[in-house]
Amino acid sequence: MSVADAAWLPPLAWRVIGSRRIRVTGSGPLVETVVDELRQACARFGGEVVRRVDGIPCDLELSLDGDTALGPEGYELSSAGGRTRLRAARPHGLLHGLFHLVRLGGAPATGTYRPAMPRRMLDHWDNVDVHPVMGQVERGYAGGSLFWRAGVARRDWPRVTAYARLLASCGVNAVALNNVNVHATEAHLLTDRLGEVAELAAVFRRYGIRTHLSVSFAAPVLHGLETADPLDERVRRWWATTTAQVYAAIPDFGGYLVKADSEGQPGPFTYGRSHADGANLLAEALAPYGGVVHWRAFVYDHRQDWRDRSVDRARAAFDHFTPHDGAFRVNVVLQVKHGPLDFQAREPVSPLIAAMPATRVAVEFQITQEYTGQQKHVCYLAPMWSELLRGVNGPAIIDSAAELVAVANTGDDPYWTGHPLAQANLYAFGRLGWDPGLDPAAVLDEWASLTFPGVPHEALHAIMDDSWRTYERYTAPLGVGFMVRPGHHYGPDVDGYEYTPWGTYHHADRDGVGVDRTVATGTACAGLYPQPWTRIYESPDECPDELALFFHHLPYGHVLRSGSTVIQHIYDTHFAGAREAAEMRERWADLAGTMPPAKYERVRELLDEQVRSAEEWRDQINSYFFRKSGVPDAKGRRIY
Amino acid sequence: MSVADAAWLPPLAWRVIGSRRIRVTGSGPLVETVVDELRQACARFGGEVVRRVDGIPCDLELSLDGDTALGPEGYELSSAGGRTRLRAARPHGLLHGLFHLVRLGGAPATGTYRPAMPRRMLDHWDNVDVHPVMGQVERGYAGGSLFWRAGVARRDWPRVTAYARLLASCGVNAVALNNVNVHATEAHLLTDRLGEVAELAAVFRRYGIRTHLSVSFAAPVLHGLETADPLDERVRRWWATTTAQVYAAIPDFGGYLVKADSEGQPGPFTYGRSHADGANLLAEALAPYGGVVHWRAFVYDHRQDWRDRSVDRARAAFDHFTPHDGAFRVNVVLQVKHGPLDFQAREPVSPLIAAMPATRVAVEFQITQEYTGQQKHVCYLAPMWSELLRGVNGPAIIDSAAELVAVANTGDDPYWTGHPLAQANLYAFGRLGWDPGLDPAAVLDEWASLTFPGVPHEALHAIMDDSWRTYERYTAPLGVGFMVRPGHHYGPDVDGYEYTPWGTYHHADRDGVGVDRTVATGTACAGLYPQPWTRIYESPDECPDELALFFHHLPYGHVLRSGSTVIQHIYDTHFAGAREAAEMRERWADLAGTMPPAKYERVRELLDEQVRSAEEWRDQINSYFFRKSGVPDAKGRRIY
Repeated sequence: MSVADAAWLPPLAWRVIGSRRIRVTGSGPLVETVVDELRQACARFGGEVVRRVDGIPCDLELSLDGDTALGPEGYELSSAGGRTRLRAARPHGLLHGLFHLVRLGGAPATGTYRPAMPRRMLDHWDNVDVHPVMGQVERGYAGGSLFWRAGVARRDWPRVTAYARLLASCGVNAVALNNVNVHATEAHLLTDRLGEVAELAAVFRRYGIRTHLSVSFAAPVLHGLETADPLDERVRRWWATTTAQVYAAIPDFGGYLVKADSEGQPGPFTYGRSHADGANLLAEALAPYGGVVHWRAFVYDHRQDWRDRSVDRARAAFDHFTPHDGAFRVNVVLQVKHGPLDFQAREPVSPLIAAMPATRVAVEFQITQEYTGQQKHVCYLAPMWSELLRGVNGPAIIDSAAELVAVANTGDDPYWTGHPLAQANLYAFGRLGWDPGLDPAAVLDEWASLTFPGVPHEALHAIMDDSWRTYERYTAPLGVGFMVRPGHHYGPDVDGYEYTPWGTYHHADRDGVGVDRTVATGTACAGLYPQPWTRIYESPDECPDELALFFHHLPYGHVLRSGSTVIQHIYDTHFAGAREAAEMRERWADLAGTMPPAKYERVRELLDEQVRSAEEWRDQINSYFFRKSGVPDAKGRRIY
Repeated sequence: MSVADAAWLPPLAWRVIGSRRIRVTGSGPLVETVVDELRQACARFGGEVVRRVDGIPCDLELSLDGDTALGPEGYELSSAGGRTRLRAARPHGLLHGLFHLVRLGGAPATGTYRPAMPRRMLDHWDNVDVHPVMGQVERGYAGGSLFWRAGVARRDWPRVTAYARLLASCGVNAVALNNVNVHATEAHLLTDRLGEVAELAAVFRRYGIRTHLSVSFAAPVLHGLETADPLDERVRRWWATTTAQVYAAIPDFGGYLVKADSEGQPGPFTYGRSHADGANLLAEALAPYGGVVHWRAFVYDHRQDWRDRSVDRARAAFDHFTPHDGAFRVNVVLQVKHGPLDFQAREPVSPLIAAMPATRVAVEFQITQEYTGQQKHVCYLAPMWSELLRGVNGPAIIDSAAELVAVANTGDDPYWTGHPLAQANLYAFGRLGWDPGLDPAAVLDEWASLTFPGVPHEALHAIMDDSWRTYERYTAPLGVGFMVRPGHHYGPDVDGYEYTPWGTYHHADRDGVGVDRTVATGTACAGLYPQPWTRIYESPDECPDELALFFHHLPYGHVLRSGSTVIQHIYDTHFAGAREAAEMRERWADLAGTMPPAKYERVRELLDEQVRSAEEWRDQINSYFFRKSGVPDAKGRRIY
């Protein structure tokens, strides 16, 4: 199986483009990419591409004469008399429109399309070297890096090209090529290793994707300066000079991504400066070239005393950053994780997102399944992202965020994402960034048609549509989060983080469980939201069940909005979740023979592991709460 | 500070030997070592060594004319008229006697001395390469290996010589030079890397210490054979040939140490053969040369289902090995960890030790403080070993074991053991192997006099004598064990192993805690001991409090032999243990100015960490059991 066949957009998908007479007008590198794509389709399926305007009518016309209101990436599709027309104001629009036509698979096309989020960015947590604990891709579950191997650029250009094409086809238009935890080797990508970055950037540029780098705030020190103080003139000059050299090598370089003063990374706090000072330093260096700083808001005390219940990690980013709203330069993007803790399967939206009206905010999702089954479990994340974007259980992200960013789930695995079905999350991220209103099930149909041509969608929907909720059911209950094995974060350990400095607790005792984050008696995190959410979260009766234990410490006998008690809800959802995992495996068996055997087998084996793991979660969580509460299961099922 | 000054036997200790006229008769390499030691002392402190018999009387006479009943290592000391005489039948006896005289510090010497255990062996868990997770020395807390660096023999001969001398001086006479978990590189020490081992063996030989190697049971396969089946003729020939080559290079080679079918290591089970088949294969190869196989009995299912309470890891070695008693060749030594689990601060003695009357048994202690504070905590282990050897809470090890083995706690740290006070454990191991009847406090005096000349012993006794019990008080209660952070095993995590496949559980629920190992209602582990111990362990009223939760699941309100309830015992010991750690720190402050400042500071800093860690243990254990039991502390102290 070729790499191209292992993901969506296999050669066969281009049949709908080939066999036709196609005219392309306009020029520039991205237009040439469009023409190349079309010519390859025609070479395989017949048809021809013409570049000049002549009198002969075409089946498909792509032209750069669209309304400038379409913006740099928008396009307009129209069909009449068996002819299809794609118009854009800029070449990037033609590229997006082309992939749209492929997605349509020949169905008639009409309408105007513009992205909701102007930047849809993928952060790769790839290390150039293999980290002794984290491996090469931090929180990566799909093999090694696509970009780096054995300490240098891997230079597997066909593979990187195929990857850039996949990303462009779902709408991603920016990538960061190295881990936000910047180690010693990776700090030199910015300077003496810049040539390797430029080579990669050239490949991504062909598909309209701009390249960014994660940088260390201590980079000046790592390069021989005695300080990295953002207010030091020598430091400003160092960043200005360094940035000028970056743009000399990569004229469309996107900018810097920075994790500062977080989990041991250096930052402006070292010098008694604020995060605004730190971010503005880099923004100033980038401004002349149109570059941006993505400054991560993931700042909290990871040496917290678990005994001190007045400290709340869920407030940390809010408390750190809201005083600086308005103090950031316009080319600073504050990059905020979607939840206030850390990419849990269920969290409220981060209160910081809606609290920075004078700052450009990007919201960060995690496609790589660190806390959602590590690409051993099927967990289709689009429904979660869709709820967060649209605001089902809290303020809508689309009301505040200007960009969407995600941590990539890809690697050099033949299926790109380890679990073949995890590809759908990458695809859906790009699509939802373009249009947050898309129905996750419709996105799944798009991806499935492109990926499993000829496979009936029914079984895929049965397995994937509700898989995030299934995962939620058999893991940490009612929004309380964590309960994972410390360090690697796979599998259950209810107390794994309970007495640690990481700030992620559940406070279970023999009477109840959950974190009191109310204004009345707790850490007041519930009070950081706009109304009506502060009122809703504050009330144990109004708070959505999904977030009940995130905001409240509740007795085991407390009756939820569902009518169930907390303890019976725990038992019921855990038995249900494990049963649903087993049902997924049964449904997958229906698909034997509909796809290449290796792909079928890969998923089948992973479903075995998912079923095993779901049962382990079920039994550990149920046993833990039964041993603690002493309340038997109302249905008398086996608890250990 | 020189390496020699960093441990016991600093140059000053030899003053008692110098300044005298000394006659040595006899010959051979070990006698020359003795003469060298004496000449160095005389060169520094005056005096002379004569080798011929003349008429002139000497202050000190060492002669090889002792009674052969003294055995290969024994010696006889006598004093009369200001003259001291040391006689031995064999050169090794002279060496031991010489160190005895140094220990005496000039006090008169009389008596006959022979070791209780003919072999006192140190196992080094050193890797030649640095392991990505375990580091270079597995469970090592004293820096890198003394023997290996950057993938090859380190060849720091002065340091290795100083080390061999230290070991000989406390009675160690055998070493294994590499980790029992044999990785790919280390498997070649036996063959193409043998030259490096021979160089090291030559240094240890100078001090009467024989060199052993850990070998992989799969070594034939790693060297190109298609099988390692112990009954395959090609495999037998491979071991015979390989062993012949080893002895050609190292004529006094001690033998092989094997961890087979344990925690992922290969073994005879792979081929459907028994451990007797496996051990005898190697024993047969070694027999012509007088070598032995140390075959570790640490065999258990490390993929246990925590839900299945019928499986008991504490029975595993007993169940595996007792059927094979009598089936091992005479040069097989079954090496049994002292407790049935894994080097916990408190366990009963392993039932296997007394259950193999027809097999040579070595008991294995762990000097490296994996579960006893990792050389960050003061934990003088001699009282524990003494109790186990003499049989205070169970059958005496000295009644059954023929050898004593221990996992080393040394490395390239300037103080050899990380924590300077951890040296005492190494010293005491050698001394107790020679004479299990020694009083641990007296051994501490010996060590302290040699190590801290001029420092009053009172503070050291106050800090160290009871430090093992202090450590026990603030960690897992009443013999239940574990409750450590999985993986690295430092610091508390009560449920860390509770739902894992490792077989180490405490079964705490809201009503009680402990593992039912009774014959009546549990796993019947209590029934594996000789009487009266089976009767004692079986009864919750007779069982020693120290082992109460090892053998019984008890309600929190159960009244112990001490008169306290289980829950109040937990609270009381944890408050007491943490307070005692703080008192240790205060006592150490008394010693400021009595020793080199760097050594004083090293211990002071480590005591800060011990106090912090002890408080963390106190608060986590107390909070865990308070949250679970709901029983308040009778003394109203702060529990979180």
